[in-house]
Amino acid sequence: MAYLNENYLKLQSGYLFPEIARRVREFCENNPGAAKSLIRCGIGDVTEPLPQAAVQAMKRAVEELGVRETFRGYGPEQGYEFLRSKIAQTDYRQRGIEITDDEIFLSDGSKCDCGFILDILGQQNKIAITDPVYPVYVDTNVMAGHTGYISADGSYEGLLYLPCTARNDFVPEPPEEHIDVAYLCFPNNPTGAVASRKQLARWVDYAREHETLLLFDAAYEAYITDPDIPHSIYEIPGAFECAVEFRSFSKTGGFTGVRCGFTVMPKSVLAKTASGKKLPLHPLWHRRWSTKSNSVSYPVQRGAEALYSEAGRGQVRELIDHYLGNARILRDAAKSVGFTVHGGTNAPYIWVETRSGMTSWQTFDWMLQQLNVVITPGSGFGAKGEGFFRISAFNSRSNAEEVGERLRKAS
Amino acid sequence: MAYLNENYLKLQSGYLFPEIARRVREFCENNPGAAKSLIRCGIGDVTEPLPQAAVQAMKRAVEELGVRETFRGYGPEQGYEFLRSKIAQTDYRQRGIEITDDEIFLSDGSKCDCGFILDILGQQNKIAITDPVYPVYVDTNVMAGHTGYISADGSYEGLLYLPCTARNDFVPEPPEEHIDVAYLCFPNNPTGAVASRKQLARWVDYAREHETLLLFDAAYEAYITDPDIPHSIYEIPGAFECAVEFRSFSKTGGFTGVRCGFTVMPKSVLAKTASGKKLPLHPLWHRRWSTKSNSVSYPVQRGAEALYSEAGRGQVRELIDHYLGNARILRDAAKSVGFTVHGGTNAPYIWVETRSGMTSWQTFDWMLQQLNVVITPGSGFGAKGEGFFRISAFNSRSNAEEVGERLRKAS
Repeated sequence: MAYLNENYLKLQSGYLFPEIARRVREFCENNPGAAKSLIRCGIGDVTEPLPQAAVQAMKRAVEELGVRETFRGYGPEQGYEFLRSKIAQTDYRQRGIEITDDEIFLSDGSKCDCGFILDILGQQNKIAITDPVYPVYVDTNVMAGHTGYISADGSYEGLLYLPCTARNDFVPEPPEEHIDVAYLCFPNNPTGAVASRKQLARWVDYAREHETLLLFDAAYEAYITDPDIPHSIYEIPGAFECAVEFRSFSKTGGFTGVRCGFTVMPKSVLAKTASGKKLPLHPLWHRRWSTKSNSVSYPVQRGAEALYSEAGRGQVRELIDHYLGNARILRDAAKSVGFTVHGGTNAPYIWVETRSGMTSWQTFDWMLQQLNVVITPGSGFGAKGEGFFRISAFNSRSNAEEVGERLRKAS
Repeated sequence: MAYLNENYLKLQSGYLFPEIARRVREFCENNPGAAKSLIRCGIGDVTEPLPQAAVQAMKRAVEELGVRETFRGYGPEQGYEFLRSKIAQTDYRQRGIEITDDEIFLSDGSKCDCGFILDILGQQNKIAITDPVYPVYVDTNVMAGHTGYISADGSYEGLLYLPCTARNDFVPEPPEEHIDVAYLCFPNNPTGAVASRKQLARWVDYAREHETLLLFDAAYEAYITDPDIPHSIYEIPGAFECAVEFRSFSKTGGFTGVRCGFTVMPKSVLAKTASGKKLPLHPLWHRRWSTKSNSVSYPVQRGAEALYSEAGRGQVRELIDHYLGNARILRDAAKSVGFTVHGGTNAPYIWVETRSGMTSWQTFDWMLQQLNVVITPGSGFGAKGEGFFRISAFNSRSNAEEVGERLRKAS
């Protein structure tokens, strides 16, 4: 009989969002009246329609495929040149970051890329993640056999957890010990924290000293409003030698259902064999895509390209301003009733301290029952998330205002 | 420094299609006149436009995303119910195969699925593939560390190769020895062979006796014209306990650039832990998708759904009839000038024996230079592909007719 991958059996059953769904369902069944006014600020999913530039481009691309003369079959496995060059040019070279077109690899989302990157890495790496953390980084490492079993506090043996607390402004310093791979995500999900140039420079310095590979998730970079905060890890000198960057159109063009993102894999990033031979990761990543994928749907690539048009950029800006406007409303409301609030100014997430003595799940229940608002309990993102909850700003303006009102009334 | 996955270094540089491209480029540069009349029957990529049912459905779906009231963000990670149930109902239950909706897992193509399936399997499996073979099965196993190094004959240590020759009608018998996992693909790429009910039954019997997992690639099932040939492995009694099936919309709806396929993972398929505990693979596969993906682009899922409408089914039928018509023309032409021809009646590929004394690459060069036609040399698919070449029927009718003419004239 075939052997299964036993590492999957180490996974904690994905309890966070199913448990939220269970509690919400139970509440709605018992409170059909309140259910009608339920507002969801839990999952970080966009709510506003796709930019018209993307809609029109995708429709045109679909039409092209319906005509023999303009039909296209398999595209390049790493993505079409028209989109790779647009990204490299607009997001990088125009900002003084020398990324070549063929260092951009398209994918159907940065969630996928964060998992796929492990395909090309070895089994021996010592890996660091932050706490709290986006669960995909952890779970994909568990699946790949890079961890032991889960401990009572919810952490996995074999991973190094870097606490993100109010004390370090939710940006951890590099550790004392040696690590081979570190996941960093700024603006951060779930805390909404951003890393300053100095903080990122300390990470790049550490990475160059320890030859650590930084996996930098910049899915929320478009939400940065502070002009001093870097949008890309490559704004930091030395990062070309040690960092891979992930980006997404999910939270810019509202592509959570359309699916498109990309990885930046500079040719100068090296990794080593067990015998110490140093080789670039770029050819491995290229080969991974050639063998395991046929890239992103052609109409989707045209939709993503359209986000870079003048109209598209304006429409994306409007979307981001909309969600950041929600964040401000939610942040101000929570603050005005005495909550201690983090994030939400350079990110679509607000990270709120629970009231004294309340756990994050107790706060979840209180918000659900008293305000009919769904949030995400911080402990779902890791042990250091206890004592916090996350409010997502992805909503309509009227819902954001209504949540603000309810917070004010209930407090 | 991070360790890289050294298994990638075992991969033979994907020499087949790059080498074809190099020779074609060189020929065109040296023969600009002939280059104009070049006809490509190499890569198995469709040429005809997308069915209008899919075009219209995708355009409607894109429009939905452009309106707040009908916008959708993240969909279910395993695919939308509307498509999973359509597939399970139409492709399986209506044909008497009891597959439930939640045993269908959508993906962006069966190339991807063939690689991803290894995510949930252990490292200890003894794996069999056919020779010749679709290179993705081999290369993904090399990447996953399931093989040793490559031998002089192009085979990898640690894999069991099952020869497919004219003697066994290109359908191998199950081996004498025990294997844990076997890849089967019928109708076959590259040989165009199909497996009879009896032949498949011998495989299922073997699989049940040895508790072998069959990975059954049915990407070309729609090309079966012989009513006695099974379209699905699940038509064979006992297959629900031992087989996973891969299917694709690439060669039915012409989705090679649109990207959609699916896996059928019956809940009754078990695999074991090192200590011998037997567990279903279904929850692992479900978890794989939850953690590593956000499923297929929503407009693409609507496009695939439309292929099941009455109009869509008619349009798909026309496409397949078109390509099978090409196959008949190419087959007849090759036969009429003395080639020994296999495949091409239940598959879009024709597997032709080279003329005596000629290798498959020599035949490639002869076809390129004398006929200005690009084919695929059989040796690119494995050692047992030497002495054959593959002609793809994916082309316009006029190109297929022209290739037939040139074969007749040159011979």
